[in-house]
Amino acid sequence: MSSIQFTPEKKIKGKLGRAGILQTPHGVIQTPAFVVVGTKATVKALTPEQVSSLGAQVVLANTYHLYLQPGHERIEKGGKIQKFMNWNGPTMTDSGGFQAFSLGAAFGNGVGKVANSKASGLLQKAAANAAEEGTEAELETERFAKITEDGVEFRSVIDGSQHFFSPEKSIDIQYSIGADMIFAFDECTSPLAPYQYQKEALGRTHRWAERCLDHHKKVGNGTQALMGIVQGGRFEELRKESAKIIGAMDFDGFGIGGSFEKEDINTAVGWVNEFLPENKPRHLLGIGEPADLFGGVENGIDLFDCVAPTRIARNGSLYTHDGKINIFNAKFMDDFTPIESDCGCYTCQHYTKAYLSHLFRAKEILANTLASMHNLYFIITLVKRMRQAILNDSFSEYKKSFTARYYH
Amino acid sequence: MSSIQFTPEKKIKGKLGRAGILQTPHGVIQTPAFVVVGTKATVKALTPEQVSSLGAQVVLANTYHLYLQPGHERIEKGGKIQKFMNWNGPTMTDSGGFQAFSLGAAFGNGVGKVANSKASGLLQKAAANAAEEGTEAELETERFAKITEDGVEFRSVIDGSQHFFSPEKSIDIQYSIGADMIFAFDECTSPLAPYQYQKEALGRTHRWAERCLDHHKKVGNGTQALMGIVQGGRFEELRKESAKIIGAMDFDGFGIGGSFEKEDINTAVGWVNEFLPENKPRHLLGIGEPADLFGGVENGIDLFDCVAPTRIARNGSLYTHDGKINIFNAKFMDDFTPIESDCGCYTCQHYTKAYLSHLFRAKEILANTLASMHNLYFIITLVKRMRQAILNDSFSEYKKSFTARYYH
Repeated sequence: MSSIQFTPEKKIKGKLGRAGILQTPHGVIQTPAFVVVGTKATVKALTPEQVSSLGAQVVLANTYHLYLQPGHERIEKGGKIQKFMNWNGPTMTDSGGFQAFSLGAAFGNGVGKVANSKASGLLQKAAANAAEEGTEAELETERFAKITEDGVEFRSVIDGSQHFFSPEKSIDIQYSIGADMIFAFDECTSPLAPYQYQKEALGRTHRWAERCLDHHKKVGNGTQALMGIVQGGRFEELRKESAKIIGAMDFDGFGIGGSFEKEDINTAVGWVNEFLPENKPRHLLGIGEPADLFGGVENGIDLFDCVAPTRIARNGSLYTHDGKINIFNAKFMDDFTPIESDCGCYTCQHYTKAYLSHLFRAKEILANTLASMHNLYFIITLVKRMRQAILNDSFSEYKKSFTARYYH
Repeated sequence: MSSIQFTPEKKIKGKLGRAGILQTPHGVIQTPAFVVVGTKATVKALTPEQVSSLGAQVVLANTYHLYLQPGHERIEKGGKIQKFMNWNGPTMTDSGGFQAFSLGAAFGNGVGKVANSKASGLLQKAAANAAEEGTEAELETERFAKITEDGVEFRSVIDGSQHFFSPEKSIDIQYSIGADMIFAFDECTSPLAPYQYQKEALGRTHRWAERCLDHHKKVGNGTQALMGIVQGGRFEELRKESAKIIGAMDFDGFGIGGSFEKEDINTAVGWVNEFLPENKPRHLLGIGEPADLFGGVENGIDLFDCVAPTRIARNGSLYTHDGKINIFNAKFMDDFTPIESDCGCYTCQHYTKAYLSHLFRAKEILANTLASMHNLYFIITLVKRMRQAILNDSFSEYKKSFTARYYH
């Protein structure tokens, strides 16, 4: 018996996309849904009550970061993640693998720095995602991760100390943290890796998936759901093979991992979801620009997580239906209207762009809070509206009208 | 007719201290009360709703800072301070003079750096108060303010540009900002200044007070109350003279300005309040350690403002009834109890010291929010309890029991 239960409600006609209900031990998630990232057991600059007020249904914390600081044992002693961070709703953790690789940046096959790779658009974004607070400079530092059949040896981003994650250890750490949904330990390859390396890594990811499942069945207490991860890089054959193999395993749901180029999302997600079981949730890991969200939903994704809304918010980049604006633009100093006059978020209900401009220029902490609230509300609401559009049989119209205005 | 109305309710037997009700255009303040500082039209790291939830009744913003950034005209265009910053309760602004002098740090009589002065305890605190975000290093920078009969010429802390405040200009700027209670422009002297200089400066402050009142009567629209400021340094004769002269002028209330040494508070405040009219509110400017608050209240102070609670919070220093604690102390990493188990603040209701320790060590923004909420609640509640104790005839017992435990 799985500790979560996914019930598809309605499909987009002729597509893989669907609306559904995901029941978890800490409440229901209406899907598709945007999962808010709280990397270090805090959604940056927001209280859990503020996060909840934005319509957020679920928070994802990062195992890698929490393992290093404050340490997963401390979170367990503090009553596990929900109690420790005062978030009473559903929670997830990733496996820590992606950060061990991407912050290690070696990617096994000799590809050095993420920032140097050519085909690095979404991968860089995902790595920044992983580092979150890290500056680009931090990502350019030479760090290494050593991959063996047993797991990955990596250095801490905090103090350079050596650490080792195996599939079993990742699961044990995630047990200590105690989220409702946890992920299998996988190898996230570079999009530059050649077919042969991708194939090797994929085999390892599949063997690690089996080890995670075995360990979970032996040691788990039945309160946490384990999600398997599909990999395979940009190769259709590998993606489909991975979806078949991982999809056939007894996971409670699935993550689609790895790095995509923007143009891959529609195709690659479709390749995979064709083979994943319909009655289990599917999570596209670390992806979150509006176009990617539409592409993901259309192709059968139920859950997304991404740090982009809060990370760009802290830099003064704010979502509007006409595209992003930079609040540092001088014209906003005297703009006494909200970011969007028809936005229902706390920030737009109470503050003008002139005030936000002042807070950002004065480097006031509240700037981070107000900007993060707006951007999270924007993205959470966008995915909620996609869900509503699916239920109303108007997904493609909604996608068309949103996209035409946003990417004008 | 004053736009504010102060009604004393009850006195501490045999003392100047009293409880009262201060009616303002934006609501009632029960006194004595702690005024929360929102230097740049934001209480650092908190939304106005969070500030209000702590029991805060009134917010004070700094004219000097707002004049420089975003500019008082912008605040006026944004609907004045309440609307601009989304604080619907009573508001105050200071005159900007103190910052022009203290961030200028010349103090007219050749006293250079605040940080070099011997008798600089509370003055340094007050200057840090003024700079707020400024580091000590910033305060040590050589900057100058030139005082003439007409006003003060000073340099901007932001870009070093030259500016000039006269009494009339300070009032005009405060009209643009639009707070319920504004302050007359005064000269805040160094505690090192000799008697002769203090006497000269005091004469100027009194003449400036007249000019502020004249200007206010000519130009004011009757919605803002003007508070006069008593000065006189550490000299009993000058303090009493100032209280008599300023107290006899048609101000709506009074501020007690200047710098005190810790041991002066009880005496100097008493000298002044003996002469100030009983039916008008008295504000001790920029003072806020628990002992100072008790001394002030006992000697007839109704209002205090201070950045200390939020400033020290951001450095991880937290108030408890047993004295301050430093959350960076290693023992708190594994302390799964609240800062104070019987504290009613949001932070203590929901988070442990272990979690706060984690947030501070991880440099998470939420650390500032949670620590500021606790410290503000502590100080606001402390002054509320003093008020309750006055009403219950138990002020001296409350002072004794709090002080014995806090300064054990």
